[in-house]
Amino acid sequence: MPHARTGPCIGVLGGGQLALMLAQAASELAIRVRTLDTTPDAPAALIADHHVARFDDPDAIARFASGCDVVTCEFENVPAATLESAARHAPVHPNPHAFATAQDRALERGLFTSLGIPTPRWLAIDTLADVDTARSTIGLPLLLKTRRLGYDGKGQCIVRTPDEARAAAAELLASAPGGLIADEVVDLRAEVSVIAVRAAGGQTVSYPLCQNEHRKGILWKTVAPAPILASHPTLGEQARAAAMRVAAALDYVGVLAVEFFIAGAPGAAPMLLANEMAPRVHNTGHWTIEGAESSQFQNHVRAVLGLPLGSTEMRGAAHAAMLNIVGRSPAPASLLAVPGLSLHLYAKSPRAGRKLGHATICDSSPDRLSERLAAIERLITWDA
Amino acid sequence: MPHARTGPCIGVLGGGQLALMLAQAASELAIRVRTLDTTPDAPAALIADHHVARFDDPDAIARFASGCDVVTCEFENVPAATLESAARHAPVHPNPHAFATAQDRALERGLFTSLGIPTPRWLAIDTLADVDTARSTIGLPLLLKTRRLGYDGKGQCIVRTPDEARAAAAELLASAPGGLIADEVVDLRAEVSVIAVRAAGGQTVSYPLCQNEHRKGILWKTVAPAPILASHPTLGEQARAAAMRVAAALDYVGVLAVEFFIAGAPGAAPMLLANEMAPRVHNTGHWTIEGAESSQFQNHVRAVLGLPLGSTEMRGAAHAAMLNIVGRSPAPASLLAVPGLSLHLYAKSPRAGRKLGHATICDSSPDRLSERLAAIERLITWDA
Repeated sequence: MPHARTGPCIGVLGGGQLALMLAQAASELAIRVRTLDTTPDAPAALIADHHVARFDDPDAIARFASGCDVVTCEFENVPAATLESAARHAPVHPNPHAFATAQDRALERGLFTSLGIPTPRWLAIDTLADVDTARSTIGLPLLLKTRRLGYDGKGQCIVRTPDEARAAAAELLASAPGGLIADEVVDLRAEVSVIAVRAAGGQTVSYPLCQNEHRKGILWKTVAPAPILASHPTLGEQARAAAMRVAAALDYVGVLAVEFFIAGAPGAAPMLLANEMAPRVHNTGHWTIEGAESSQFQNHVRAVLGLPLGSTEMRGAAHAAMLNIVGRSPAPASLLAVPGLSLHLYAKSPRAGRKLGHATICDSSPDRLSERLAAIERLITWDA
Repeated sequence: MPHARTGPCIGVLGGGQLALMLAQAASELAIRVRTLDTTPDAPAALIADHHVARFDDPDAIARFASGCDVVTCEFENVPAATLESAARHAPVHPNPHAFATAQDRALERGLFTSLGIPTPRWLAIDTLADVDTARSTIGLPLLLKTRRLGYDGKGQCIVRTPDEARAAAAELLASAPGGLIADEVVDLRAEVSVIAVRAAGGQTVSYPLCQNEHRKGILWKTVAPAPILASHPTLGEQARAAAMRVAAALDYVGVLAVEFFIAGAPGAAPMLLANEMAPRVHNTGHWTIEGAESSQFQNHVRAVLGLPLGSTEMRGAAHAAMLNIVGRSPAPASLLAVPGLSLHLYAKSPRAGRKLGHATICDSSPDRLSERLAAIERLITWDA
């Protein structure tokens, strides 16, 4: 039986809402969480043992990691040197190679391709000549994305003409030293994600496929199981199998999110195309707190500490949906008054484009879930 | 949108597992919890802003309560002077009168009786002559209980003969200055409880009736909804109505637990007899974390802060059961390996009779719940 002072301690690099929710899940098992971020008022400071330091300060990272039983991360763009510093003092899960792969869109896509997982057609772009190659092999329009440090739609743009393509590529190449990728613009029917969990021994579980909607590049809504499964039930197993191959190839430990496009013209068979992955708990898995028997946060904690993984089955209600609260929030009381709504707030001050919280509802009927969701959507107006 | 540094803060007198679970629930709404206990390694210190002080130190109570938006308690035997000190700096919910009533079995039973709520036959015992009166009016055997400071079966004993009655009463009266009550020993068919929640405006909700089993005076198991409802469905409404009358009479704000005996010979109509109440979140409500749409902890937080109360409906699984872990614990991994089991550990070192954690399972089928529960019961061996 762990003791508050002597039980296990997980170090989390990053102190945002994902670290906060990891600390909530860990505390149920009397496990301490120590977080590190550059700002003292990070969300996780609400309940974690919060350290303030720069990620490029090796002494601070050493002090942070010493005494932790394991170190993990809540954001993928942790500098490699930070992970190396931490790894000298505690095991780091997921491993630094998984982070290096997820931090670079070309490495990530290369891994998918090497594992036989279909993706949108893509090409690495290091020079303007590469843009011309992409135009001739993939065709226009193209989606240009920086290889590194893009998130929530930042660092990417669609180009529709040769001039646009060269101008945008020149601008992105100048500002993004890691280079770009050029991506096929697919006929998007839906976006889905798999939240998988792999234990050190290789045991792997995953949650039902999630279907996601974005607004201005930021996640707006996740529904699980994905409504598209009703008409295309095999997509779930395809996506699950792809995520499992990625996790095994990376010798991954912890929660891994893989995002897919479902492409194809209406009437044609849908194509499942892997887009990107995140080596961490993921916004499209927040519904698991109420909707699944063990949450993604609980399972990440269990995986990195070598404990048995928890059930990823939907709780009895069988259907769940999550809405993000971005930029500004309605008064909490107006959301708490909605019967059966679970509200999570992240202790952040409002700012345009900032994720401030989320709301989850569960229902045994997918139709009733949609109706209830529509009523809640009217309460949540973003400032993105 | 609250901020970690500027959002609401709840002060909790006591830092045990109930305070820990209140802090977990509060953190979901970005609400800070400050706890006060006499020991630095109290369970809530894992995640709360924990203060160490004696409850009879008015200056410490003043420092603790200043800056809290509301003060509440996680144990009923908070000294009246402590509540008065706190109330000078922040609203105290539930109110001190509710605590005074719950702290004294004679006041508590008197309230039940005044509200027309049946109880076991009982008599206040201040002298040995009162014991003789109880023998002649109630009859033997009798259950003698101290009016104050009894919990988990402590401070009570059954007496079967006149000599035993006088000897035990003399001993208890000498050690318990508040006096005793003598209670009828009823034909116990089941023990049940109602977890009710009342908001400041009078809005009241309650969870489905819970059925409880004790071992050596300590709660062993709670099942909700109570299996006895299958044969006696009206008991749920009777118990709920009684708890609501008590909450209204006390102008109560927060979670209130009322425990009942179900008495009567097999075959006869069951009688619902109110035994005692607890002015706080309650061990027989721990299953609500996973089993209900909003937990008792979430609803206590909402009630004391004046937020709308959350749904007390069972989650889709519809049936839930909780087992306490007392004195010693199996290795956490052995419990975490049970599919669908939710484990809560309290960061306490093992000691005979000490509640160290609990396990909850939910199932849509009551029969399957019983089967799964039987398998888990074999894993949990107490040291009580």
